[in-house]
Amino acid sequence: MKVRQQPFRSPRNRGGDSFADDRYTNQFINTRVGDKPSPTASDDKTFDHLTAKKLLQFIGEPPVRFVLWDGSVVSPGVDEPVATLYFRDRASLYLTLLRAELYWGDLYAEGRVEVDGDLAELLDAIYRGLERGKSWAWLKWLYESLGHRRISNTFSKAADNIHHHYDIGNDFYRLWLDKNAMQYTCAYYADPAMTLEEAQTAKMSHVCRKLQLKPGDRVVEAGCGWGGFALYMAQNHGARVTAYNISREQVAYAREKARSLGLEQRVEYVLDDYRNISGEFDAFVSVGMLEHVGPMHYPVLGQVIDGCLKPGGRGLIHSIGRNSPKPMNAWIERRIFPGAYPPTLREMMVIFESNRFSVLDVENLRMHYARTLDCWMQRYEKHADQVEKMMDARFVRTWRLYLAGSKAAFTSGRLQLFQVLFAREEDNDIPWSRTHQYTTHADPIRDHRAGTDD
Amino acid sequence: MKVRQQPFRSPRNRGGDSFADDRYTNQFINTRVGDKPSPTASDDKTFDHLTAKKLLQFIGEPPVRFVLWDGSVVSPGVDEPVATLYFRDRASLYLTLLRAELYWGDLYAEGRVEVDGDLAELLDAIYRGLERGKSWAWLKWLYESLGHRRISNTFSKAADNIHHHYDIGNDFYRLWLDKNAMQYTCAYYADPAMTLEEAQTAKMSHVCRKLQLKPGDRVVEAGCGWGGFALYMAQNHGARVTAYNISREQVAYAREKARSLGLEQRVEYVLDDYRNISGEFDAFVSVGMLEHVGPMHYPVLGQVIDGCLKPGGRGLIHSIGRNSPKPMNAWIERRIFPGAYPPTLREMMVIFESNRFSVLDVENLRMHYARTLDCWMQRYEKHADQVEKMMDARFVRTWRLYLAGSKAAFTSGRLQLFQVLFAREEDNDIPWSRTHQYTTHADPIRDHRAGTDD
Repeated sequence: MKVRQQPFRSPRNRGGDSFADDRYTNQFINTRVGDKPSPTASDDKTFDHLTAKKLLQFIGEPPVRFVLWDGSVVSPGVDEPVATLYFRDRASLYLTLLRAELYWGDLYAEGRVEVDGDLAELLDAIYRGLERGKSWAWLKWLYESLGHRRISNTFSKAADNIHHHYDIGNDFYRLWLDKNAMQYTCAYYADPAMTLEEAQTAKMSHVCRKLQLKPGDRVVEAGCGWGGFALYMAQNHGARVTAYNISREQVAYAREKARSLGLEQRVEYVLDDYRNISGEFDAFVSVGMLEHVGPMHYPVLGQVIDGCLKPGGRGLIHSIGRNSPKPMNAWIERRIFPGAYPPTLREMMVIFESNRFSVLDVENLRMHYARTLDCWMQRYEKHADQVEKMMDARFVRTWRLYLAGSKAAFTSGRLQLFQVLFAREEDNDIPWSRTHQYTTHADPIRDHRAGTDD
Repeated sequence: MKVRQQPFRSPRNRGGDSFADDRYTNQFINTRVGDKPSPTASDDKTFDHLTAKKLLQFIGEPPVRFVLWDGSVVSPGVDEPVATLYFRDRASLYLTLLRAELYWGDLYAEGRVEVDGDLAELLDAIYRGLERGKSWAWLKWLYESLGHRRISNTFSKAADNIHHHYDIGNDFYRLWLDKNAMQYTCAYYADPAMTLEEAQTAKMSHVCRKLQLKPGDRVVEAGCGWGGFALYMAQNHGARVTAYNISREQVAYAREKARSLGLEQRVEYVLDDYRNISGEFDAFVSVGMLEHVGPMHYPVLGQVIDGCLKPGGRGLIHSIGRNSPKPMNAWIERRIFPGAYPPTLREMMVIFESNRFSVLDVENLRMHYARTLDCWMQRYEKHADQVEKMMDARFVRTWRLYLAGSKAAFTSGRLQLFQVLFAREEDNDIPWSRTHQYTTHADPIRDHRAGTDD
């Protein structure tokens, strides 16, 4: 049995407090199991085998086969398991049993658990299994809640969190995101045969149609990523966009891109927190930021929108969500997205209720995110060697698990993707139907190019 | 000054406890104001005038003119008021000031306050005024909350409530509802030029498209009114419908209609509470019932749906709602709809969250209800004489106010109309876009007539 002794280390030492809790993880993850000689080897083996069986039961008996470090096999009650999961040492089994949500990711990243078969399918099966086994409900609740940190995104904490994830390096994201607009959010497959590039353009078009953007409209975007959507709104709808982001690398990239396209007069990128948005706008839009806001800050977000939206204005929030409240997967919250929390619709409503906004339209695009992740994963795997050269092998596995796990979360219904369109309560200029969202959806590229008035 | 002394009486004495609180109202409404001689008539006049001015201020100075019983005029700060409101006696002014939400309706019904101008426009102006005057917020909250009763719809209470409103008489409703399907819920004006009949058909079609009904599907409808939608689903989508309703008169009407169309094999009307729904169905649909359920019963409704919806099934709830929580207008809750409460989306989510339902689509059709009410009001006024013969003059005015007030609530944004489509969390067979909701919307009558397999 081999238990690696080196302490866990993040792929790049980026400072900040996002990995401050590593000592907590390491305390367990470096446990030597089996240091003391057991009474007999066969007792041990029986006990490990029983433990693995229990684990399989606990997660709802998904069609998954376990192979232990000594080669012994624990089979599910079905003929064709979707995947095989290898526990390479005894500790990896017991750590998984102890707190899978938190430790399993690190064990996978370290190569101490390995998967033969489709990783996303395996996780989908496990997620579905977990939901099925109703008798374990309270234990599962405990299991999923442990290891979670209270999310309080102060200004500096928010900046650290965003820096942790989005400033990994533009070169890294460029390897697997869409080429046109570097959209690191759910695409919209209006036609399921679309390429990733087409579907990301369709997403931007879909949002603009929902907002009914007109040439000359002033738009504020909260959380603009690499700035692709702001440019799209300026180029295709003649909008003037002010886009906020607290990721330095992303804003630098976006400004350079706007300059190269000669759009710096129409699109302004502001390196600042959404809470500092000022000015008056015809539309408020936020695609993929709410996940990083944290529910305790929703009232402030609502006030910010109330403060900047003109009478007759429209708003749209596009966010990962949940059907019922549950914290973010603990491993993802620690290793990938510190400070993140996907809200339920009920929780999101806090933004609107206190500020007399009227929700006009909600669309759930869950399966679109699963497909987006599929496209990202294909490109990611194609460039895995390059990623390993840029980072290291552990980083490659960490991100492989994160992408596959996210896809499984969307296919199993653990995660949702909500687009919520809203207006001021007293605004009666609402379209009679949503037909305008679908008039030319088959060819999203053919958006009107009018209104570029400078 | 004339103060009518006859006690308030409901248009038809229907028993039940829905008017049990009349003594409470009458205690104030029969107050003689001015029994004691005032110091001087001119002091009185000045004080009344000032009071009326304060009332106008309190409701946010809407463009409305007051005329008092002595002919004196209190004008708003604008040149062209939308309407003139006559207080025919002193008590009517003070009762309005005391608790407008509760007393004003009765005063209007008794002819002690009268309106010159568009009643709905007047109420829209007042509702908007009330929202504008931010400084009075706490007082308005108190004002709107007083006089409200806790809504606990037990089985027998629910039956009483529904009997109170829906069993007024089919002949009465027939005078002003659409001729085809007697839909007493929001129509869908896919094209704003539609007639009421076309728009009610379009609504039924829109709901069926959202549910993606297929021939042979088993549908359960909770709260089916006069049964028109159940018949529509059977005739146009080949569905087999079990429809629940606790209104005896409506169920009798619906059964007769199904027989006359030879559809009694495909549509079954059950005179029972939604809580007693049993069986397994491909779709759950409820149009205009949730308003009568009461938030404390939403968890039970969720369980009922969970218990009867097959895997892969779809559900749709169509309900009046709110942007922020507020009790039903006290007068409407007492005189028109006992036990009614329009929920916010946040409140509605209780139905879905605990039962692992996934909200796929929410559409707000607020302005469609305003237009529906407009159509109803036109027909109602055309038959006002007939209504007076069937009931009495007070009833005519009561319903005039209720219809106009409802329209104003929708145009001013006090009320919303939500259609919420949902599915089971684990169901991935979700259409890639909502295009199917709009493919033939221009001609909703031309629905496919296939699948009538018997």
